[in-house]
Amino acid sequence: MSRVAIVGIGHSRFGRRTDVNVGELAFESIKEAVDDAGVDRKEIKNVVVGTMGSWYEELLPAVVVNEYAGLSGAGTMRVEAACASGSAALKAAYNSIVSGETDVALAVGVEKMTEVDSPTSVELIGRAGSYMWEFENFGMTFPAYYALYAVSHMNRYGTTEEDLARISVKAHRYGAMNPLAQFQKEITIEKVLGSPVVAWPLKLYDACPLTDGSAAVVLATEDVAKKLSDTPIWIKGVGYSSDTANLGRRSNYVGLEAAVRAAGRAYSMAKVSPGDIDVATAHDCFTIAELMAYEDLGFCRKGEGTKLLREGQTEIGGKIPVNVDGGLKAKGHPVGATGVSMAVEITKQLRGEAGRRQVPLRKGLGLVHNVGGTGHYAYVTILSRS
Amino acid sequence: MSRVAIVGIGHSRFGRRTDVNVGELAFESIKEAVDDAGVDRKEIKNVVVGTMGSWYEELLPAVVVNEYAGLSGAGTMRVEAACASGSAALKAAYNSIVSGETDVALAVGVEKMTEVDSPTSVELIGRAGSYMWEFENFGMTFPAYYALYAVSHMNRYGTTEEDLARISVKAHRYGAMNPLAQFQKEITIEKVLGSPVVAWPLKLYDACPLTDGSAAVVLATEDVAKKLSDTPIWIKGVGYSSDTANLGRRSNYVGLEAAVRAAGRAYSMAKVSPGDIDVATAHDCFTIAELMAYEDLGFCRKGEGTKLLREGQTEIGGKIPVNVDGGLKAKGHPVGATGVSMAVEITKQLRGEAGRRQVPLRKGLGLVHNVGGTGHYAYVTILSRS
Repeated sequence: MSRVAIVGIGHSRFGRRTDVNVGELAFESIKEAVDDAGVDRKEIKNVVVGTMGSWYEELLPAVVVNEYAGLSGAGTMRVEAACASGSAALKAAYNSIVSGETDVALAVGVEKMTEVDSPTSVELIGRAGSYMWEFENFGMTFPAYYALYAVSHMNRYGTTEEDLARISVKAHRYGAMNPLAQFQKEITIEKVLGSPVVAWPLKLYDACPLTDGSAAVVLATEDVAKKLSDTPIWIKGVGYSSDTANLGRRSNYVGLEAAVRAAGRAYSMAKVSPGDIDVATAHDCFTIAELMAYEDLGFCRKGEGTKLLREGQTEIGGKIPVNVDGGLKAKGHPVGATGVSMAVEITKQLRGEAGRRQVPLRKGLGLVHNVGGTGHYAYVTILSRS
Repeated sequence: MSRVAIVGIGHSRFGRRTDVNVGELAFESIKEAVDDAGVDRKEIKNVVVGTMGSWYEELLPAVVVNEYAGLSGAGTMRVEAACASGSAALKAAYNSIVSGETDVALAVGVEKMTEVDSPTSVELIGRAGSYMWEFENFGMTFPAYYALYAVSHMNRYGTTEEDLARISVKAHRYGAMNPLAQFQKEITIEKVLGSPVVAWPLKLYDACPLTDGSAAVVLATEDVAKKLSDTPIWIKGVGYSSDTANLGRRSNYVGLEAAVRAAGRAYSMAKVSPGDIDVATAHDCFTIAELMAYEDLGFCRKGEGTKLLREGQTEIGGKIPVNVDGGLKAKGHPVGATGVSMAVEITKQLRGEAGRRQVPLRKGLGLVHNVGGTGHYAYVTILSRS
């Protein structure tokens, strides 16, 4: 199978972006990625746009994004896998190159979530599951879905509210070092624990914000990649899986089975094991989600995520630094953009271009863990320097 | 490059389907396709769902569809390319097999459009372009976009309202032979010409209806296809392209450039020419769209579509029968399902299973032409018996 590399990356500033529309927002990262790759836009024969939509007015976001970026005429589609839409876009673009369809493809993720009012947001996010049954009948909100998991994890493994708060504090510490992050301010455990309860045990500071933002990567075949870049970052493994729409049909609430399956497939394709990974991004839409990810990705055994966390092993200098870009919690979570943003961060890390946030590299392997809904979708991508 | 075949097809009844929700509607075609393929559901490692959404309540249609069909756990994503979403799903599923990701994949298209009221429909369809500029500022409705093309084509090539009506009459004639079609009743040219003007010269009977429906195909590698099926239908060519969001930026209004480019790529990949095609489906969301498709696909020269039509060459027995399933006009147009529905029809024709609507086969080649928006997206797929 032919090899595919990331040869260009771009990333907009995340936050409340009332200064741009969705096309302009996407363009910020597309321009940067295309310039970084040093590729002529005409060479880009496939553009995959990851976005949920519904938050903003455009119903055909892909064509609007392409027109503004001067990419009309390329083959294109929008893909959606809820909050994993960005990783789905990356996978679809990757597939199109491996299929021999094109030498160069662009995956862009974009979301503009702050155009709607707060109740609409709560409703839209709440629909990210089984709308007709669990949302409409039971009145479950999205934080409530993850609260079920948090309670179950606390009950079974002795995880505490302090543990969860620790993840938020870590996110903000690294967010403060990331000039593109929505929140660039450190916080304390007390601040998290004292914040309003959203769905116990999850509090305001256990939750990621609503965010506007975009991220883009240019992918190329091995031949093209070697011409364009001295540091192509290779896509070594792509795994993805899904789970039931209704949480009531899940077998347990201490981990996301879809993520376990997706990770298994990605490791197997890349022929690496969890211990080989130097740096990872994990989908911390809520703090409990990052904790479960440690376990689902095999960075530790089930139930031992808190141990890893308390020892500081998921910080820079630890065994497996996670979310040193601030994560969804502090960097922000423009849902369609997040998966691509994660790939941009891991590419920067593997290139050794992450500055103050750079992790030490051993094997030159990084991992992206991106979840849609409450494990309704899971995508795991493994990137490598070689 | 490895060969990929369609080994199973399924198709729901199209129409106003108040009897089912979106998951149940998709299941009708999924069950049929999986049974037709004779494959175990567990073998299906990738499910791509083509749907616009927005018309119905579920925000994560792919997971809802998969749960109902017992496919949770498969890798999945939703894809959207406006009214070409079904073809985009087919392409993404095809790519996943060529990439070596899986041996068997399912592409399903579904839409449930009649849940919203009529003004909401008009607005939703109108947004299928550049919402902020041409819809909001100029008040263009979707029929008005295609009316621009119709007027331009009439002006330049002498196309008449009767010519357009002829396409509608043809669609209804074949729709009357298709038990799954929304409209199974023949109409006359007088009926079309006397129907209310929607956007001159387009009248009510120049336009396809709003439809609920689903269609599904099972795809497999050559090895698996030969085990499962005596009549695998091979995907020989896939071409796709796009055009500007704003129609104001198009170079002309007598054809869809995206369709011309998509067709060129598909023919080139399949190594066939327009004259080799035995049967085609064309995206007749409005009658003018089918007429332009004859020319864009190279079935005749630019401006000579009316000649082909008047001579009856696009009917069964003619040079190139088009939309002998009733087309979008009579079969119905559940937007996300349409591209897959077209592939189902062409597969039936190439298998020789189209009954009263069967076209004579010479080279065993069929073509699917599926357009999103007003040529914002175009996908062309070439299928073959060998």
